Amino acid sequence: MNSSLADRILAGDPRAIARAISLVESEDAAAVELIRAIYAHTGQSYIIGITGPPGAGKSTLVERLIATIRSQSVQGRRLSVAVIAVDPTSPFSGGAILGDRLRMLTHSGDKGVFIRSMATRGHLGGLARATSDATLILDAAGFDIIIIETVGVGQDEVEIVRTADACIVTLVPGAGDDIQALKAGIMEIADLFVVNKADRDGAERLALTLESNLSLHSFKPGQWRPPVLNTVATTNTGVTELVDAIWRFRDQDKTLQSRRQRMRGESRLRDLVSQRFMKRLERNGLKPGEFDDLVERIAARSIDPYSAADQLLDRVIPVAAKT
Amino acid sequence: MNSSLADRILAGDPRAIARAISLVESEDAAAVELIRAIYAHTGQSYIIGITGPPGAGKSTLVERLIATIRSQSVQGRRLSVAVIAVDPTSPFSGGAILGDRLRMLTHSGDKGVFIRSMATRGHLGGLARATSDATLILDAAGFDIIIIETVGVGQDEVEIVRTADACIVTLVPGAGDDIQALKAGIMEIADLFVVNKADRDGAERLALTLESNLSLHSFKPGQWRPPVLNTVATTNTGVTELVDAIWRFRDQDKTLQSRRQRMRGESRLRDLVSQRFMKRLERNGLKPGEFDDLVERIAARSIDPYSAADQLLDRVIPVAAKT
Repeated sequence: MNSSLADRILAGDPRAIARAISLVESEDAAAVELIRAIYAHTGQSYIIGITGPPGAGKSTLVERLIATIRSQSVQGRRLSVAVIAVDPTSPFSGGAILGDRLRMLTHSGDKGVFIRSMATRGHLGGLARATSDATLILDAAGFDIIIIETVGVGQDEVEIVRTADACIVTLVPGAGDDIQALKAGIMEIADLFVVNKADRDGAERLALTLESNLSLHSFKPGQWRPPVLNTVATTNTGVTELVDAIWRFRDQDKTLQSRRQRMRGESRLRDLVSQRFMKRLERNGLKPGEFDDLVERIAARSIDPYSAADQLLDRVIPVAAKT
Repeated sequence: MNSSLADRILAGDPRAIARAISLVESEDAAAVELIRAIYAHTGQSYIIGITGPPGAGKSTLVERLIATIRSQSVQGRRLSVAVIAVDPTSPFSGGAILGDRLRMLTHSGDKGVFIRSMATRGHLGGLARATSDATLILDAAGFDIIIIETVGVGQDEVEIVRTADACIVTLVPGAGDDIQALKAGIMEIADLFVVNKADRDGAERLALTLESNLSLHSFKPGQWRPPVLNTVATTNTGVTELVDAIWRFRDQDKTLQSRRQRMRGESRLRDLVSQRFMKRLERNGLKPGEFDDLVERIAARSIDPYSAADQLLDRVIPVAAKT
């Protein structure tokens, strides 16, 4: 069953893609086999991450990006675009699901566009894992561009876009203390800044603040300096310039792209090793009831969680051992 | 140094508490020793988690909860309250830091109140781990009540309140599709629902929707049915009733509380085992360069990440082995 699902994904069948993403979302065991089957066919897509606070107009901007990218062709072929909208607000607002439908309507009938929202409510890290696997599926399906849109409010969500080939941070004027926005580590993840709703009061000041903060950084000769771009997504203003800037970023430093790909590989490996270790430990490395006993002792305060964790690990990898 | 820091925490010294929380926030190695030293003295606080969408008025509500709880005494002693405000929006808005200062002002001089925001931007799961350790520090310092406030938009943030002794979900009228709010797994984590800003249009409908959804659940006799409470935090309306409901919940089922404490122990142990395993594997279980080689092969698509993870794990815990 999965080999044929893999084949259908490689052929770009949208229903197979949708089904496969549902599998990774539900953390179905079949998803692992599927990723194994398609993995050799991945690594071709260019991955663009977009993050920013709620209300920055990211959905509209992504909408415009799709249209602009779709209107471009490379060697006579129009670029295809897939979007993963990671919407952690959906447990409360249902925004993702409704948004999905609206957006799908706009592009219905266009086979070169695929839009999907992710809103896994599993364990810690589950969302990042599912998004990462969904990206692999879309990559194997042959999409030229994959846009991952997150609301940059949760740790997972910032983490998700951090390893994209290009990371766009979208800000809006008047959304609070601009200076704070820059202090808190956003500078480091942005390859491009977008001041959206740039027709609003305070847009110029926000752009200036971003620029003056960038000027505090010392960029080496030849090093990419994140540009600050102004857009008004609702009127499609500045979107072509944004897309041009993305391509400039992509073309300026090819080694960066392979470094990011390596980063994705590394974070995925670390995540999987940790996650699968725990499962394996419980199945094959523990005496029956041993884990539960430790949990009871932690709850009873007769052992602290750090010592309990070390006690389990000592059996598997003694600290002194050098293999 | 740490043993004296531990002693000062146990004595309730606010500066020692603040310093210890900074240690866990920065994932300092000394933090592990500190938690080990204080852990036996924890398990006495009652932990209240509050989550809800941005704009639900949680900060004001928490403010009112502090004042109401502070006004109450048990056996002639006024209850002390500590608050951990997990504000993942702060990378963009700086809300946490500013909010902290404002809130601290209101309660300055009151030694029975401690307020602290957490906004770690570390690795996946880092925020949950830091919050969990900060809770232990406040618990060891003797606070009767610990309130953990999160914006329920990220997976980590929902996860953080899930294991509190009492979990309050705060909603507001007019914040989107009410029905969706209920579909998305929020029902399961709430012990109490609060409709805040209950003087607004649509509040009654929201409360009715919550009630009618609750009535679809079949509660066993004696089982807690989450009440739906109306508050207007700005005018202090309904807050005493909310506090009463929290105490009713606390007193109705003591076994639930020990079950939650066990859940906290379990999730902490799982998290620590996974995290510390990876570190130990790299230090003691791998040949030099072995991990990097695998990462390169993943990036080069010559091995998929799942197979790479299994390859590392096979050496540590063979699948067939039964210890």
